[in-house]
Amino acid sequence: MTATDETNPDIVALTRRHFLRDGALVGGSALALASTQARAASVDNLPPNVAEWTKTPGDPTGSPLYGTPSPFEKDVVRNISKTLPQYLSASSRTPLQDLDGIITPNGLFYERHHAGVPTIDPAQHRLMVHGLVERSLIFTMDDLRRFPSESRIHFLECSGNPGYKKPYGKTASDLVGLVSCAEWTGVSLKLVLLEAGLQPGAKWVVAEGADAAALTRSVPIEKCLGDAMLVYSQNGERLRPQQGYPLRLLLPGFEGNMSVKWLRRLHVTAEPAYSREETSKYTDLMPDGTAREFTFFMETKSIITRPSGGQRLTSQGFHEISGLAWSGRGRIKRVEVSVDDGKSWQDAQLQEPVLTRALTRFRFPWRWDGQSVVIQSRAIDETGYVQPSLAELLAVRGDNSFYHNNAIWPWRIAADGEVSNALA
Amino acid sequence: MTATDETNPDIVALTRRHFLRDGALVGGSALALASTQARAASVDNLPPNVAEWTKTPGDPTGSPLYGTPSPFEKDVVRNISKTLPQYLSASSRTPLQDLDGIITPNGLFYERHHAGVPTIDPAQHRLMVHGLVERSLIFTMDDLRRFPSESRIHFLECSGNPGYKKPYGKTASDLVGLVSCAEWTGVSLKLVLLEAGLQPGAKWVVAEGADAAALTRSVPIEKCLGDAMLVYSQNGERLRPQQGYPLRLLLPGFEGNMSVKWLRRLHVTAEPAYSREETSKYTDLMPDGTAREFTFFMETKSIITRPSGGQRLTSQGFHEISGLAWSGRGRIKRVEVSVDDGKSWQDAQLQEPVLTRALTRFRFPWRWDGQSVVIQSRAIDETGYVQPSLAELLAVRGDNSFYHNNAIWPWRIAADGEVSNALA
Repeated sequence: MTATDETNPDIVALTRRHFLRDGALVGGSALALASTQARAASVDNLPPNVAEWTKTPGDPTGSPLYGTPSPFEKDVVRNISKTLPQYLSASSRTPLQDLDGIITPNGLFYERHHAGVPTIDPAQHRLMVHGLVERSLIFTMDDLRRFPSESRIHFLECSGNPGYKKPYGKTASDLVGLVSCAEWTGVSLKLVLLEAGLQPGAKWVVAEGADAAALTRSVPIEKCLGDAMLVYSQNGERLRPQQGYPLRLLLPGFEGNMSVKWLRRLHVTAEPAYSREETSKYTDLMPDGTAREFTFFMETKSIITRPSGGQRLTSQGFHEISGLAWSGRGRIKRVEVSVDDGKSWQDAQLQEPVLTRALTRFRFPWRWDGQSVVIQSRAIDETGYVQPSLAELLAVRGDNSFYHNNAIWPWRIAADGEVSNALA
Repeated sequence: MTATDETNPDIVALTRRHFLRDGALVGGSALALASTQARAASVDNLPPNVAEWTKTPGDPTGSPLYGTPSPFEKDVVRNISKTLPQYLSASSRTPLQDLDGIITPNGLFYERHHAGVPTIDPAQHRLMVHGLVERSLIFTMDDLRRFPSESRIHFLECSGNPGYKKPYGKTASDLVGLVSCAEWTGVSLKLVLLEAGLQPGAKWVVAEGADAAALTRSVPIEKCLGDAMLVYSQNGERLRPQQGYPLRLLLPGFEGNMSVKWLRRLHVTAEPAYSREETSKYTDLMPDGTAREFTFFMETKSIITRPSGGQRLTSQGFHEISGLAWSGRGRIKRVEVSVDDGKSWQDAQLQEPVLTRALTRFRFPWRWDGQSVVIQSRAIDETGYVQPSLAELLAVRGDNSFYHNNAIWPWRIAADGEVSNALA
């Protein structure tokens, strides 16, 4: 207690009685249920009178000049797949279960690389535009910064998020941590292509990265003349090296690897390149022996991030169910939540603003009665597409698919409060 | 050149001719002007055939597990005021002139501390709610996490951004770098207050920080029952220590110091506390000898961030003028730009989504003719309030004001392209 506090009758009273333990509900709302527990929990946890951090001046301002999280958050980091050599083709996942809102901080944005992360000097970097164009062009980063700019909030997701093979993973991050969302700034790709001038017959743009994989993907000209961007900034600052510094393609709603990072070349062509990443990889063998290829769109999907696998409910009563929904086709229109193993579904609240091809945060007030239960979410986008169950998806895709698993993912809550993957 | 490139006739041709140097305009648009320069600039800067970073695998994935910017961006850091002892009352400014979009990354969010930055253990931290309430309450962080949550994008700005005294500063960061914008997640303060139950006569809530300054501000009950939040997350992750970890108040649109960081206490009262920070500080002496106090709202404001002080235009022709506008009263309705020292004004484009009490990015296409010129922006919010000139503001506020300078700020562009503060 500070000197001020010692003379305050409210605080003196507060330290002398346990008036919260059996506090009555103040109404029938979920809020009342929540608060009862909050009050019950607080009784035995009175604060130290004055904490150590209040007694002495704190750390200097601007230290470090580029800030970092609290040391108490040291475990909130990217989640690395142990099965891949990290310097070649590898990935790291966003800890979705630890995050709030829709913006992913740059330090926790998921990564997927095919030959490690190059360290590129922006003064040396060039973008070449050539092929079926009127004028082949080479741009410096300064040239691209001279173009009119635009900023948009979009998600980015790896098409193998998750795969179809067990074990699927324990946490929300293990399962679908290869999705993140940021505010991107750059130049409309359409402006740059019109600058070069398209020749008749220009149907595809083959994008190539400057990494050692020279990752190459073919993009339909319609997308390139639509919402595609050449991006140099993410969440205000310049792209991180892991996100393509100094320049990446961004194809909102398309599978992540097509948004080629460290972009060095755009080759305008009549046909796709049929590169390694659109033949050997990022295609799926169907039951009839054909391959699904050029599966651009990330279909409607959602996941409950709280409570989710690896977390634990410590008491009965009110718990907010919160999660993320997204669609590569546009805006999320509705998210439904089931808290009875899929028998019934109720609408969740969507946090405004609901943006096209962006993560959308949903919330659902819920009271846990302490019984074992399965909870899950199901998203519907503005085209009317409904997120399928895993069984429905497998019935169509067969046993050999790897990419584009957008199934509903249920969590089981045990009677002891432990949350686990209900399909594992 | 890679093996593939060597056989590509387009690229072979590209290396042999200088077809871009005198490229004709492809139209009368600003874009055409931009692109002419882009092409001219690119001729003498052909890329190395294959860069070093393409020849060898890059750095490992997930290194570091919490990511950092490119080493080439090492100068994009917070800007520290040299005149204040950094471990006590001090500030650091966001490098607005280096940023894009509206989201400020957490590592570059401005800071303002009154007794340094405490390192708080969230497991030990408590929030007490007492005074004119039905039930005094103490909350752990886990308790607060149990409440229904909400996420909103809002700016935060120090009321002394900038002061009124010369020298005003050289860069946009020097001038108005004490403003930033983030997606905040937390609990509606109204829910927590209703939980405690307000007694008749409850008109103010006195918020107190757990830092060594025990920073204390009085907040009108209307704001507390409106859009005020108890915030634990910023841009997805938990608050940084410099932003109040593990808990801060957020009063959207109000002067920054009222959004008390490291929040430990909410005392519900009938009268304001008249604390140091609302009497000795954060008040302004008016010409008639009275003091303006409780100047909550940050009024409508804007600043051109590009081009801005310290930057340099390296060539004539197209330059996008870009900047930020905001209002503590609601949404930005319009931003006007003048490129003739205030003689005429034209509407800038506003980047969607335009959110209430959030930074709004504006853009204006412009062609520089190489002459000395003064450029400036003027914001108008949804209440119809028009950002004033410094002369207009000084005529009302007199010579003794320090806070709430929301004047239009012009930049002078010299014939050599150097951009400087036109009022310095």
